[in-house]
Amino acid sequence: MALIKKQKNKIPELRQDLVTKEWVVIAEKRAKRPQEFTRKDLKPLDTSLENCPFENPQKYGNGEPLLLYKNKKYPDWSLQVIPNLYPIFTPDGKCGETKKVGPYSLIDSAGLHEVIITRDHSRHLAIMEDSEVEEVMRAYRERYLAIKNQKEGCVKYISIFHNHGPEAGASISHPHSQLVATPIIPTDVGRSIKASYSFYGFNKTCVHCAIISWEKESKKRVLFENDNFIAFCPFVSRVNFEIQIFPKEHKPNFEETSINKLGDLADVLKKSLKVLYDVLKNPSYNFFIHTAPIDTTQYKRYHWHIEIFPKTNTWAGIELGTGIEVLMISPENAAKYLQKNI
Amino acid sequence: MALIKKQKNKIPELRQDLVTKEWVVIAEKRAKRPQEFTRKDLKPLDTSLENCPFENPQKYGNGEPLLLYKNKKYPDWSLQVIPNLYPIFTPDGKCGETKKVGPYSLIDSAGLHEVIITRDHSRHLAIMEDSEVEEVMRAYRERYLAIKNQKEGCVKYISIFHNHGPEAGASISHPHSQLVATPIIPTDVGRSIKASYSFYGFNKTCVHCAIISWEKESKKRVLFENDNFIAFCPFVSRVNFEIQIFPKEHKPNFEETSINKLGDLADVLKKSLKVLYDVLKNPSYNFFIHTAPIDTTQYKRYHWHIEIFPKTNTWAGIELGTGIEVLMISPENAAKYLQKNI
Repeated sequence: MALIKKQKNKIPELRQDLVTKEWVVIAEKRAKRPQEFTRKDLKPLDTSLENCPFENPQKYGNGEPLLLYKNKKYPDWSLQVIPNLYPIFTPDGKCGETKKVGPYSLIDSAGLHEVIITRDHSRHLAIMEDSEVEEVMRAYRERYLAIKNQKEGCVKYISIFHNHGPEAGASISHPHSQLVATPIIPTDVGRSIKASYSFYGFNKTCVHCAIISWEKESKKRVLFENDNFIAFCPFVSRVNFEIQIFPKEHKPNFEETSINKLGDLADVLKKSLKVLYDVLKNPSYNFFIHTAPIDTTQYKRYHWHIEIFPKTNTWAGIELGTGIEVLMISPENAAKYLQKNI
Repeated sequence: MALIKKQKNKIPELRQDLVTKEWVVIAEKRAKRPQEFTRKDLKPLDTSLENCPFENPQKYGNGEPLLLYKNKKYPDWSLQVIPNLYPIFTPDGKCGETKKVGPYSLIDSAGLHEVIITRDHSRHLAIMEDSEVEEVMRAYRERYLAIKNQKEGCVKYISIFHNHGPEAGASISHPHSQLVATPIIPTDVGRSIKASYSFYGFNKTCVHCAIISWEKESKKRVLFENDNFIAFCPFVSRVNFEIQIFPKEHKPNFEETSINKLGDLADVLKKSLKVLYDVLKNPSYNFFIHTAPIDTTQYKRYHWHIEIFPKTNTWAGIELGTGIEVLMISPENAAKYLQKNI
């Protein structure tokens, strides 16, 4: 296990496109050379314990835990949250200073980037105990609230996501999630919030509440449901076998989920990942939380949720050039296959 | 070489998301089974001549050519355009009939889906002769104009794109491009057009003209330039080593490029693909044309262009969850490496 000496990284830059208004982060870790970008066959991730940076995070050179849980099974630590060694949003960045470069604007990629690590090197969420998945949800919520309550003016949005498997962009096999606190409201998120207000204006109801109520009625795409959460393959899925999870009660903010409901959330998330694991044979996947920005005095029309994207194909010219995504299986048929395995 | 009997495909469906307003196409080729979506290691494409559906397209069961070029080197055919055997936009679809399904709307994925095939089984665009790349540009333009001039009311937008390599979603190794004629203006395209008008309103100039003029002045990211076209790594790139190609004169519509300028376009495209080929060692890539919708009486503020996306990494949770894309090399440094190899 190598001890990595932390280099002083260049502060990443957020640049906004003049046409699409989308943001990109330029996060050059070090002087990369073009060889590092040449075509490599996608290899299975290195799953060896010896090279794992998360098996003993601090020994590997990571910072001290921002949060640490223990339980009976793992008395040293069952879960820990650490700062990302190569943050794409960093507290070193200056907050709110816009620099003009030609016709463009850019800002420092100020913020936070954390990693939520569970103890077991190979047991990932789909095959964890329910109580362990609940612990992960608790950590998401606890870190979210801690950052929000710092009232650090620079943080406008917090995104929590999880990458599993090399096809889904995971670069470390040890199960982990990530949290980024960003100095902007991402353009996509901003558009969705605007759309939720516009739908409310016309229909006097939350767009997601309308969708949930219709999905419950039609039953075709619903996979799991308990007192507080529901999971279904959305009628307009962006990828094959997509699953979305919603709180049944209208709630704009993930972090306002009360502690005693996290068990129900873990139940539905775990079952969703497990049925994908069974039917698609341990697919690579991404999931992420879509929630309202941290200024909770606004955004009441938004309805937080989780989206799970199994990775079964690659977005190509049509998706990149038009934004139109192509599914090879309908959400109805995907749900039918999944339902058979529940 | 197997003769594939064409099955009657289900007509693909276009569904629009209630929140994001994005479209997805559900294009189930046949009764797919979940096994077909399970994790497979990404294999190099089958490059054998025997299994190639494009080596002798008609013998393989493809339709008659919609366009066929011959030249001295290839007296049988040097390029042909055929209908896609499994179209995701199809003339079998009903035009303009909106069906309500719960809170959603859907329409038939009516339109056209064509494949532009060059004769040589393994020589792709980066390593073709200039005259061959020009022939491809000529075919793009000719098919675009033919479809536009049919004045088939259903077609609102034409997208032309090219996928090279398995990591970029190409499923057939024989070099080919694709054209789709769609019954909608893709949401992304619509947004960009709106933004080009809004920029014009504020600045009394085309946003892309302003960008080109600044890039020419700063020189940092410019790769190639001739009388009519310019190629550079855009200041806000969406992927590592992205290149964009613009006509230097303000033109909203690709298809209005005059025949005698196609040589200059081919020159810049070929050189861009070749330098990526040299520096990134034959990377997988996608490129696509962004042009105004076919109703050319509008959209005068748009400026058509080509975007080339080499595939050097995978969009993961942060990109999918927030739309913020992460670059590991700045466009300036990418351009510097490419410039050294020109």
